Amino acid sequence: MSETVDAPSKIVTDGGTWRFPEDRPLRLDSGAVLAPLDVAYQTYGTLNADRSNAVLVCHALTGDQFAASTHPVTGKPGWWPRVIGPGLPLDPDRYFIIATNVVGGCMGSTGPASINPATGQPFGLAFPVITIGDMVRAQAMLVEAMGIDTLFAVMGGSMGGMQVLQWAADYPDKLFSAVCIAAAARHSAQNIAFHEVGRAAIMADPDWRGGAYEVQGVRPEKGLAVARMAAHITYLSEQALQRKFGRELQRDGLSWGFDADFQVESYLRHQGTSFVDRFDANSYLYITRALDYFDLAESYGGVLAEAFRRARNVRFCVLSFSSDWLYSTAESRDIVRALNAAGCRASFAEITTDKGHDAFFLDEPALDSALRGFLASAAEKRGLA
Amino acid sequence: MSETVDAPSKIVTDGGTWRFPEDRPLRLDSGAVLAPLDVAYQTYGTLNADRSNAVLVCHALTGDQFAASTHPVTGKPGWWPRVIGPGLPLDPDRYFIIATNVVGGCMGSTGPASINPATGQPFGLAFPVITIGDMVRAQAMLVEAMGIDTLFAVMGGSMGGMQVLQWAADYPDKLFSAVCIAAAARHSAQNIAFHEVGRAAIMADPDWRGGAYEVQGVRPEKGLAVARMAAHITYLSEQALQRKFGRELQRDGLSWGFDADFQVESYLRHQGTSFVDRFDANSYLYITRALDYFDLAESYGGVLAEAFRRARNVRFCVLSFSSDWLYSTAESRDIVRALNAAGCRASFAEITTDKGHDAFFLDEPALDSALRGFLASAAEKRGLA
Repeated sequence: MSETVDAPSKIVTDGGTWRFPEDRPLRLDSGAVLAPLDVAYQTYGTLNADRSNAVLVCHALTGDQFAASTHPVTGKPGWWPRVIGPGLPLDPDRYFIIATNVVGGCMGSTGPASINPATGQPFGLAFPVITIGDMVRAQAMLVEAMGIDTLFAVMGGSMGGMQVLQWAADYPDKLFSAVCIAAAARHSAQNIAFHEVGRAAIMADPDWRGGAYEVQGVRPEKGLAVARMAAHITYLSEQALQRKFGRELQRDGLSWGFDADFQVESYLRHQGTSFVDRFDANSYLYITRALDYFDLAESYGGVLAEAFRRARNVRFCVLSFSSDWLYSTAESRDIVRALNAAGCRASFAEITTDKGHDAFFLDEPALDSALRGFLASAAEKRGLA
Repeated sequence: MSETVDAPSKIVTDGGTWRFPEDRPLRLDSGAVLAPLDVAYQTYGTLNADRSNAVLVCHALTGDQFAASTHPVTGKPGWWPRVIGPGLPLDPDRYFIIATNVVGGCMGSTGPASINPATGQPFGLAFPVITIGDMVRAQAMLVEAMGIDTLFAVMGGSMGGMQVLQWAADYPDKLFSAVCIAAAARHSAQNIAFHEVGRAAIMADPDWRGGAYEVQGVRPEKGLAVARMAAHITYLSEQALQRKFGRELQRDGLSWGFDADFQVESYLRHQGTSFVDRFDANSYLYITRALDYFDLAESYGGVLAEAFRRARNVRFCVLSFSSDWLYSTAESRDIVRALNAAGCRASFAEITTDKGHDAFFLDEPALDSALRGFLASAAEKRGLA
């Protein structure tokens, strides 16, 4: 039922914010409640007649719903240009692709910058702590509101992959397939430690104002930039940094000062300063907290396989990158072992690359073909071929 | 010629600050000059009659001269308790052990907190950028002033190991042996990136005041703490963090807030806050800069072996730790290859441990025995047995 389009590069795109009213609150894992609830989303492609071609794409820590369309703040193209598009593994001519902004985010879904109905002011730190489970629950509300019973696939990398695993645990009957890329079933001590550095950097900025910066007309830009710089190092492999930058200088010779002498310094500074234009510091605190709290096995007596026990009919694809030291291949293997132990069908590949964690955004042909192969096979089984 | 001491735990300790007057300036690699120059030091043990038992111990980024004696600020024992002491590899009954505070440091040697003779105020950012070569040149001035022609050994881990390599390049005739632990011959892009995060955190603190905080009666404590937190993660392996902390909580249950829920958060915060009591933010900037500038081969046409060409009579020991991801075994292997290519005699061992970079400070019996074996053999050759 795909629409006829003028050119292969034209994608039927829709989007906006879905508001769930007071009487349809989001019940959070903390026990708190969010109502009303906004879920901001974009869609690419057209839902077919039997509503069987919907794919939910879940974003990473600093991502958003603009997976395949121009970001309204930065003007840059969507964050998954190798995966979503005509002729690509997720072809909008074939699939109805939904991307939402996570609850707690800052691109339209209810988050710490939203208005707290109790005060008429932005929530700030009065926003309740949210979890990966809460993010997924809000997505499930949107999918249901769209009249979709079963998703053909739920997909994502990094924190997006964690949402995929949470979907499999919480809504196995609503999934036909699940693709988890460069993720982990829980945050490690090192993962938590890096996030704590980022939070400390934000909170150390006097313009953070205990989270109430927005009403005071300031923004903790320096702290947020430092947080981003620290995190960004973990997204790249040591080899990729060495290959891209090595010890290359910005200019001829050293400055004998504290200017950005090395290209890697300049690159990292740019990552920090450009990030603050598009991201909210409190959202960064809340989403990193959700990641740190993530431990899927914990609600299942510490046995990860139990989380997947009801997901035996879901087709899983688990992918990792050999040089990813944020969520390493060992973490993906743990997921696959648990899927196997639960009797789920799971295909797994470690993609050999020196690009590190961020490889799932990048030019990585082995990722393209792994996704293409898995989705083609699942689509055939689903009768979408 | 070791002194008779009352008990095996008593060490003959001396120390203070050696002042080199105006007419004996330290000429820096930048072209600038430091005069007068203070070099703060501690010694352990007694110089023998033929002055052949002196060992220079070089400290890491945040270390100091208190390698084997109580730190005057923290009241804690010296930083190398497994290596220096009666019955230990560096026994003060046998060796005359010298430890200095590096130039640029904050424990008595001339650094950015010292008085700038030109203004009568602390240098702050008017302090010249220094290098590992400058640190070593200041040490060589002290060693010469003490009347020591040849060091039995120069030893150090991390930045201390880089100083060891620089000694071998600049003063090969003054060395009998050299022990380089968990170091590298140059800073990688990832190394530089982590340091840039730390510097950005310090400079983002409004109490840094462009480096002039001291005269304004403030200190950039929050920024320095964040810098330390980020760096500290690189000193430990992922496995060590997981083994020590995992996802263990501070209290029963989650706080559903931004308190330190996880033990690793609390640990990291403590590392940050306790560091600012003993370290100067500007010194942190200058010493990280010296590390980033370090590339021993660079002055030798990019060929590391050329740096060691004159060091054929020096006995080298190079040690790395299998789980060190800051300065990995691959970096040590590069050093050993260059030593071999230069015709130097070098023994090398990778010590298998999950403790990461900081293993050189810690309870690591394989390190103890490697040091003991190498030093015993060298001492015999030197006629110190």
